[in-house]
Amino acid sequence: MNGYRDLRVALLGCGSVGAQVARLLLEQGDELAARVGARLHLTGIAVRDLDAPRDVDLPRELFTTDAEQLVLGADIVVELMGGIETARELILRALESGADVVTANKALIAEHGPELADAAEQVGAQLSYEAAVAGAIPIIRPLRESLAGDHITRVLGIVNGSTNYILDRMDRFGDSAEDAMRVASELGYLEADPTLDVEGYDAAQKATILASIAFHTVVPVDAVYREGISGVTSAQIEAARHAGYVIKLLAIAERLTAADGTTGVSARVYPALISRDHPLAAVHGGKNAVFVEAEAAGELMFYGAGAGGVETASAVLGDLVSAARRHVIGGPGIPGSSHADLCVLPIGEVSTSYQIMLEVRDLPGVLAEIAGLLAEHGVSAASVEQTVADGAEGTATLVIGTHISREADLAATVDALRGSAVVTAVTSVLRLEGGA
Amino acid sequence: MNGYRDLRVALLGCGSVGAQVARLLLEQGDELAARVGARLHLTGIAVRDLDAPRDVDLPRELFTTDAEQLVLGADIVVELMGGIETARELILRALESGADVVTANKALIAEHGPELADAAEQVGAQLSYEAAVAGAIPIIRPLRESLAGDHITRVLGIVNGSTNYILDRMDRFGDSAEDAMRVASELGYLEADPTLDVEGYDAAQKATILASIAFHTVVPVDAVYREGISGVTSAQIEAARHAGYVIKLLAIAERLTAADGTTGVSARVYPALISRDHPLAAVHGGKNAVFVEAEAAGELMFYGAGAGGVETASAVLGDLVSAARRHVIGGPGIPGSSHADLCVLPIGEVSTSYQIMLEVRDLPGVLAEIAGLLAEHGVSAASVEQTVADGAEGTATLVIGTHISREADLAATVDALRGSAVVTAVTSVLRLEGGA
Repeated sequence: MNGYRDLRVALLGCGSVGAQVARLLLEQGDELAARVGARLHLTGIAVRDLDAPRDVDLPRELFTTDAEQLVLGADIVVELMGGIETARELILRALESGADVVTANKALIAEHGPELADAAEQVGAQLSYEAAVAGAIPIIRPLRESLAGDHITRVLGIVNGSTNYILDRMDRFGDSAEDAMRVASELGYLEADPTLDVEGYDAAQKATILASIAFHTVVPVDAVYREGISGVTSAQIEAARHAGYVIKLLAIAERLTAADGTTGVSARVYPALISRDHPLAAVHGGKNAVFVEAEAAGELMFYGAGAGGVETASAVLGDLVSAARRHVIGGPGIPGSSHADLCVLPIGEVSTSYQIMLEVRDLPGVLAEIAGLLAEHGVSAASVEQTVADGAEGTATLVIGTHISREADLAATVDALRGSAVVTAVTSVLRLEGGA
Repeated sequence: MNGYRDLRVALLGCGSVGAQVARLLLEQGDELAARVGARLHLTGIAVRDLDAPRDVDLPRELFTTDAEQLVLGADIVVELMGGIETARELILRALESGADVVTANKALIAEHGPELADAAEQVGAQLSYEAAVAGAIPIIRPLRESLAGDHITRVLGIVNGSTNYILDRMDRFGDSAEDAMRVASELGYLEADPTLDVEGYDAAQKATILASIAFHTVVPVDAVYREGISGVTSAQIEAARHAGYVIKLLAIAERLTAADGTTGVSARVYPALISRDHPLAAVHGGKNAVFVEAEAAGELMFYGAGAGGVETASAVLGDLVSAARRHVIGGPGIPGSSHADLCVLPIGEVSTSYQIMLEVRDLPGVLAEIAGLLAEHGVSAASVEQTVADGAEGTATLVIGTHISREADLAATVDALRGSAVVTAVTSVLRLEGGA
C-alpha cells in the first residue's frame, strides 16, 4: 500500500455518525486507499468537549477543539456536527479554501443548500450530502446522476423512520396513537422533543432537498406545505384498511401545472392514504423508501435504513470516496474495478437452508431412517412435515426444511436419499435465500 | 442556449433502446445542454441497414453504415448494437481514441468487461454500463460509488423480468408452468428462443457483472453456477406458499469463506424460496429489483423496470450525461443544481383524490344534500359509504371517496361541509397518493 499520496480528511463532530465514520476510516485504511488510489488520512476530529464519552474508542490525539484550524489544512472536510450557523461558516471556509465538503446536515442543506452549492461551484469544489436524506439509502446520487437524462415527474418518500414506525404499529398491531408513540419513544425512535418528527418538520426539510434536486430548482423549506401525524386516529387507520389503503407520512415533490397554466413544483408533507398494492405500503417499521416516477425510467423505488450511526456513516463514506477519487483523476493510479482479486468459489462452498420434497414408502420407521441419513451427511432437519399422500398407493410425501447446510453436504444427502430403499422419488430440492 | 461547446456523441445501433436514446437526445437538446454545460451533438447513428423500420422517426441523414468512421470523430460513443465481436472492436477503438463509452451490452460486459475496463483506464477514459443490469434501475452507480466506502456482503437480484413474470403468474394466479410460459410469450416477454431467459443465462451474465462490481474482482461468466426455472412445478409453488415462501429466480453474489478458510466470491443463479415478508417477495410481474446487504449500510433495495426501450434509454442517458459532465469539469459553465428556476406552487394547486369522513344527522335527504354540496364546489364523489352509526344517537358516519380534485376546491368543500346543518362533524380528510 505504499506509493499512494495522502488526502487530508478533517472530521467535524463525533456523535453517533461521526464516531462510526472515524472508525471505518481508521479500520479500513488500506482497502479504502486501494479503492480511491490515495490514502484517506484522518487529520483530526473537531469536537466541543475533548472528554465527552464517544460511541467508539478513538485515539485521543485526533481530537481538537479548534475546528477552524483543522478545516484550513484539509483536502476534504466531513461535517457531522449538526446545527446551522457554525456548520455553515466552517463549510463556507472549507469550500473557499478549495476543499471538498461532505455533510449529513439536512437542516443546513434545506436552509442554505443553494448558497453552499454556489460557493462550491465558484471554486470548482464538490459539496455532497447523500446522508442528509434517507440515511444509508443512495437517493441523492441516483436523482442527480443516474436520472440526469430523464424528466422526473414525482417523488414520494417515506423519509422519517419514527413516524413510519408509529403509523406501522397502529396499522399492523392495532396500537392507539398514544401507545405507538410511547413504544417508539421507549425504543429511542423519538427525540426528547418529538415535534420535529411527529409534526413533519424533519420530513419537510427532506422534501425541500428532494424537490430541489429532482427539479433542478430552489425550493425554500418554508414553501413546503406541512401536516404531521399527530391528528391521525385509529378510526382513520381502520377506515383506510377497510378501503384497501394504508396511511403513511409522505414527503412529496411533484411537477405541476397550476390553474393559470404556470408550470411549477409542489413540495408537501402529510399523512396520506396509499394503496396496499403500492411498493411503499410494504415499507415497515423504521425503514425509509423513496419512490420516484420519471417520464422515461417509469417507476423506481429506493429502500433501506433511514437512520442509525453506522448506516448513515456508509452514505458519508460513499460521498467521501467519491470526492477523493476526483482528486486522483488525471493522475496515475486510478484503481480499476478489480483490485481485490478474490477467487470465485464453487457452488459446493455455498451454505443456505433447503426445502426437500420426497415421496417415501408409507411404512413404520421411514422417518427415523431419513433423519439418520441426513445426520450422517451433516445436514440437520429444522422441520419435517408429512402431507396427505396423493402419489402412488402406499407412499407419503415428506417436506423437509433443513438448517443452514453446506451445498456439498446437501448434494451428497440428496444422492443418498435417491439411493435409499424407502425413498421412491426426490421431487424437489430448493434453496432458501434472503435469511440471516 | 448559445455559448455551450459541442460534445460529439456517436450512437451505434438503432433498436428499441437506441431509437429512444436518439429521440430523447434530439428532443431534449436544450435541457440536456443546461444540465451538462455542453451541447450533446448526435453526430450519427451507425446501422447495418439504412432502410430498416425504426420505432421512432429520426432524420434520415443521421444514419450511416460506417460505424468505424463515426466512432473516430466522437467524444462519447454509445454502443447499443448488441452482439459481441464487432461491438468489442468498436468500443476498444473508441476508448483508444480517448472517447468515453456508454453501453447497455450485458453479454459483452459479462464476457469482456475487465479487458474493456483496462483499456479505458489506460487512457483515462470512462466506460459505463448502468443499463446492462436491471434496465432503468440505478444499481451499478450505487454499488460503485454510493457504497464505495462500505463492505458489501451479499447481493440478491431479480434481474430477469420474463422469468419473474412466469413465476409470479404461477404463484398469484395458479397458472401451470406451460400456461404461464404461453402468456409470457404472447405478451412478448420471451425471446423467440426463450432459453436465454428461462434457463438463467441472461441472469448469469448479470450475476457476473454484479459480483464483479460488488466485490471489486473479476468473476468470469462461466464460473457462475446456473439453474433455470424450467424445472419449477406448480407443486413446488404450492408447497412454498404453504410454508410462507415464494419462489423467485435469483442472481446471487456473495462473499464467502470456503471450508479451507479461503475467502472468495460465489456467483450463482437459481430459483430459490424467499420469505413472503422479504421485500423481494413483493416484486411482481416483469419488474426487477436488487437487494443489497452491506456491513455498514445494512439492507438496501433498488426496484423498477428491468427492460423496455424507453426505460433502458433513461439509464443510458444518465451515463451519457455523467460522461459529458466529466468533459466539462474544470472549464467554466458547470451548471449548478438550480438552472431550472421553477416557481413553487402553493398546496391549493395540488390535485389528488380524497377520503372524507363525516358525521351527519341520520335523516332522509342527507345524502342528496351532501352530494349537491360537493358538486357545487366542483368535487365529484367516486364512492359514498354509510357505516354503522357509532357516534351520538341519530347520527350516521359517511365515508366519501372523491375523484381527483384540486386542493383549493376540496378545502372550500370541507368548509362548506363544516357549515352545513346536516353535518355534525368532519372527522377526517385524507389525501390519496401513489395513484395515476
